[in-house]
Parts: sequence; C-alpha cells; structure tokens
Amino acid sequence: MIIDIHGHYTTAPKALETWRSRQIGAIGNPAQMPRASELRIGDDELRESIEGNQLRQMRERGLDITIFSPRASFMAHHIGDFQVSSTWAAICNELCYRVNRLFPDHFVPAAMLPQSPGVDPATCIAELVKCVEQYGSVAINLNPDPSGGHWTSPPLSDRHWYPIYEKMIEFDIPAMIHVSTSCNPAFHTLGAHYLNADTTAFMQCLTSELFKDFPALRFVIPHGGGAVPYHWGRFRGLAQEMKKPLLEDHLLNNIFFDTCVYHQAGIDLLTRVIPADNILFASEMIGAVRGIDPQTGHHYDDTKRYIEAASIDPKQRQAIYETNARRVYPRLDAALKAKGR
Amino acid sequence: MIIDIHGHYTTAPKALETWRSRQIGAIGNPAQMPRASELRIGDDELRESIEGNQLRQMRERGLDITIFSPRASFMAHHIGDFQVSSTWAAICNELCYRVNRLFPDHFVPAAMLPQSPGVDPATCIAELVKCVEQYGSVAINLNPDPSGGHWTSPPLSDRHWYPIYEKMIEFDIPAMIHVSTSCNPAFHTLGAHYLNADTTAFMQCLTSELFKDFPALRFVIPHGGGAVPYHWGRFRGLAQEMKKPLLEDHLLNNIFFDTCVYHQAGIDLLTRVIPADNILFASEMIGAVRGIDPQTGHHYDDTKRYIEAASIDPKQRQAIYETNARRVYPRLDAALKAKGR
Repeated sequence: MIIDIHGHYTTAPKALETWRSRQIGAIGNPAQMPRASELRIGDDELRESIEGNQLRQMRERGLDITIFSPRASFMAHHIGDFQVSSTWAAICNELCYRVNRLFPDHFVPAAMLPQSPGVDPATCIAELVKCVEQYGSVAINLNPDPSGGHWTSPPLSDRHWYPIYEKMIEFDIPAMIHVSTSCNPAFHTLGAHYLNADTTAFMQCLTSELFKDFPALRFVIPHGGGAVPYHWGRFRGLAQEMKKPLLEDHLLNNIFFDTCVYHQAGIDLLTRVIPADNILFASEMIGAVRGIDPQTGHHYDDTKRYIEAASIDPKQRQAIYETNARRVYPRLDAALKAKGR
Repeated sequence: MIIDIHGHYTTAPKALETWRSRQIGAIGNPAQMPRASELRIGDDELRESIEGNQLRQMRERGLDITIFSPRASFMAHHIGDFQVSSTWAAICNELCYRVNRLFPDHFVPAAMLPQSPGVDPATCIAELVKCVEQYGSVAINLNPDPSGGHWTSPPLSDRHWYPIYEKMIEFDIPAMIHVSTSCNPAFHTLGAHYLNADTTAFMQCLTSELFKDFPALRFVIPHGGGAVPYHWGRFRGLAQEMKKPLLEDHLLNNIFFDTCVYHQAGIDLLTRVIPADNILFASEMIGAVRGIDPQTGHHYDDTKRYIEAASIDPKQRQAIYETNARRVYPRLDAALKAKGR
C-alpha cells in the first residue's frame, strides 16, 4: 500500500473561492458578511473535482491513499480575525470530510486550524476536537507563522503553542508544520516561504528542549524538510556546538520529513542522509508544481518514480510508502485496520 | 591555486567588539558616542588574530587565497541609523584592508555596506567606492534584509536596489547576497535566517526580469544556495509554470553558488545538479560551524575534502577552485595577474 501523507484540496469547486472572496470583502462590514450556509456545493461537484484530478493521478501513479487537508495557500490565516478564520476553517475542513465520505478508500482527512495572528492558539482546539472526533481527521496542519510572512509568532518551542500540543498528545495525532500564503513581498509563497518555514521550524526545535517536554509529540516537516537534509552537516555541527545530543536522539524520534522533492537528485540526497524511518511518502499532488519535467517526460511531482529509483532496500521503501505513515498517524492505521487493510 | 571566496573576519581582536558595544550603548545619546579614532588595534594584534586562525587552517588545508570581508553576523544593519552603520562599516572594512596589507598573498578584501533599514541603498555608494578604489575590494556583501529578520525591504529585483547595481556594473564587481544577525526570535541566525535568505534571494531573481535590466550583474548566493540545489526540480517547475526561460538561461549567467555545505552528500548534490561553472569554492572558515565531525574526524567546514571526493572531472574541480572565481571576480584576477599569479 502506498500512502501519500501530503495532499491538499486544491481543486475545490469555484464556489468555494467565490464565497471566500465575499467573506474577505465583508471584513469590517458585518452586514455584508456571507453565512456559511450560503455556500452550496453538491456531492456531484465534489466527486467531479476529485475524480478527474487527484484520484485519476493517484490511480495512474499507483497511490492508494492520500491524507487530505484544505488547500494550504488558501488558509491565509493573516486575513481577518479569529471569527473569519474560524468560519473559513470549518467550511474547508467539512469539504475534506465530505471528500473522505465520498471516497472513503482513498482520502483520509487532516484538519486546518482557525489560527489568527496574535490570537491564543488554544482558541483552535474546538475545531481540532470536532475534526478528530466527528470527521475522523488523523492529523492537523499547524501554521508556525499565521501572519503570512512577517513571522510575528513565538517559536514552536514556546509555551504559546503548548495547548495545541497537549491536545495532539491526547488524540495521538501528528502536526504537519505548514505555512500559508505569504503577504510579505520578499517571500514568494511556493518558492521561498514554504521552504523557509520548513527550515525555520526544524531549527526552532533544534535549539529547544521541546521534545523533552513532549516526548510523544510528532511533527512532519513537509517539502523534504526545506533546506535541512541538504545542510545536514551544518545542522549536526550547530547542534554539536550547542552541546545538544546527536540529532538522531535530539530530534528524530519526533520529526519526520516528507518526500515532496521534485527531482531524483534531491530524493537521493534525502534517502542518503535521513534514516528511512523518518521519511514519509508524499507528493503534494495537485500542488505547487504541476507541470511535466522535460528532462524526464513525467510530472515533477510524481515522486513515486524517484523513490522507486532511489538506492534503498525494499524494507526501507516499504517504510517510506506505508509503515512509517501507520506509525506516525496511528488514527490512520486504526481506520485502515478497522477495514481489514 | 585554490581560492576561498567566502571568509569573514570572525577573529578580530576583542577591542573591536568592545568599541561596537560602546557605539550601540550610545545610540540616542550623542555625547557618549565613541569616535572611530578611539579604536586602536595594532598590526601585531591583527597578525596574531589571523596567523593562528584563518591562515593556519588555510595552510593546513592547502588553500591559497581567501576573499575576506567583515564578520557577517556583526554587520547588524538593523542597529541604529545610517550614521551608526556608516561608522561601523568604515571601521570593519578598514580592518579587512589592513589584513590584506599584512598578508597580501593570502587575503583579498570584500566590502560590507553601511545599509540601514528604510534608508536608500544609494547612501552606501561612497563606502563602496572607497573600498574598491582605495582598499582594492573585489566584491561587496549585499544584505537583502537590513532589518535583521523582519524582511521590510523590497525584493532584490526592485529599482530600490538599482543604484548599487549600477555601481557594481561600473566597477565590474559581484555581490555576495548575505544577511546578518536575525533579531526576529523566529529565525536562528546561522541555522535558519542565512539559509532562508539564500533561498529567498534566488526566488526573487527567478520571478523577476532583473538580469534583463542588468545582463552583467553577478550575484553569489552563499551557503550552497540555501535550499535551492536540493529543490532544483521545484525551481525548474515553478519557472516553467511562470513561462520563464530554462534556469540555465534565465539565471545561471548571473547567479553562482558557493560550496559552504558541510557534508559530503550535500556537496555531491550540489555538483550533480548545478553546472560546475556556477560553483565557487568556499568554506566560510572560521565561521558558523567550527567543530570536528565525529563521522569523518575532520572539520565540518573543511569543504575542500568534499570537493576532492566529489564525482567531477579535474577540469570541473579546477573551475570550482580557481577559474570561476577569476571570472566572477575580475578585479581579483587582475590583482593576481599583476603579481604574475
């Protein structure tokens, strides 16, 4: 079985974006604010948006299951206040849940949170609980920078975030550390902000004792860990100067990297440097890079091809494709086992 | 000949830091402001600070020349106003010049600029001109984020920066794009901010037409290009979606990566993905990572060992060690040729 732990609902029906535009336009003008119930998307529309897109490509590539969360760049936590984010997160999470109900064998939901800059993350817990308990979400996406590129929140090691971590431990779910759109003109969202956030989050963990406070906390750092595996020697050396334990002991019981790295050389580096038990198969299809690589004739984001060609043994490949995901996402494993899978 | 294009004066005598502390302490209190002339460092102190440190290790490793600029983390352009930065840059640049005079066969200066957040970069030109004309500086370090981690400046493609570029073209010097200390608690200076800036700068160039306006402009992106080579497929794919030319044509006539990547797997990726003509040997010794790698028994930053072991041919190795540096830094080449080197 091949589990893609990183998929977003990037192909939602146009009505979603239209509703969101109305919501944004009504900020500061409550009389204009659309109600959530004004957004109507039928099951047929949902089916169509998935069948010809993600599901078609999953079948073509031989992927079985995608952990499916709302579109990352649309989270845009910097827009409006908590109430705006709260309504928007509820809508987006419900759509991913409905996709799961329509395609229960292929899509498993993960939740976005209604974060808002300067607002206590504890305010997100009600949505988190609903998604896990009612929607069967197996993970959350946690945005370390809800300001959208101004980085005004404390580091992930700060007690600011602990209410979220306590709930994650209680539910035994991991968090993917994933920013949203950059509203800072210095940072291109897909080419700079995402990768920078991955590197930043890793370093926030490295300099801290977070995982001493939460030995069971699990973070997935997407996009192959940003710059981290490429600079693994740098991070080992920095940890050494700070008298931290070896990275294997200090971080790798708690941090996992996905395989959203869109060329063979990158995946070869990842699998050479990072233990296979810390690598989770992912493509982020349909996501940031949708084209076909003229050098290979295949989609850049067809990451399974790179894993197939990597110099790893069958057991490691199996770990990356399935075993690790079942371990890092125990609620996914339980849901699969309940179906005899 | 082996040229290390990325060295900083990290071992300057303690009196420099003491003077800087006095300067910072006097911000807002002009009567307390120390004069530059109050800083007195003798030639013997300079010699000692270099001979037992950078020069000793250059000899041990077989490096001939280092392009030597003020300590990057000490530039701290976010502190004080333009006048504070201006006095500080003048002091630091003069010290690098004096090291060059004391060790003319081994150290060639590159200049820091007196940048200050929100101040027109054109104010830096007087210092730049002095360093090139009087000190023989062969390059500048340009900070894309003088705010120190708040990223309040326009992207490098903005006309805001053009006065600097025009002077670079006139003098035929490259700029290393190098940030300084992060004062944003989200970003660790050495483990996040530096690498993020490298990735950010590359993406600012990718999305723009900067090198159409300045076909002869040359940027050196340090620390192996941040996350860029590891995600080369992502950047190729993003450029393709934006209908940009192939990266080779769009950026690689103007952008060069150094080899400050502190493990074999990272250098192997760099040399596999990036054309050898775009790679410049560098170690940043004595810099961010000073320890000995227990996996190899050698210094993490002894990057020559990785280049020696990389799967490249002798001509490519020669390009990385010397030929490219002479091409990208024509004033270095001219200075060497004047000495028959």
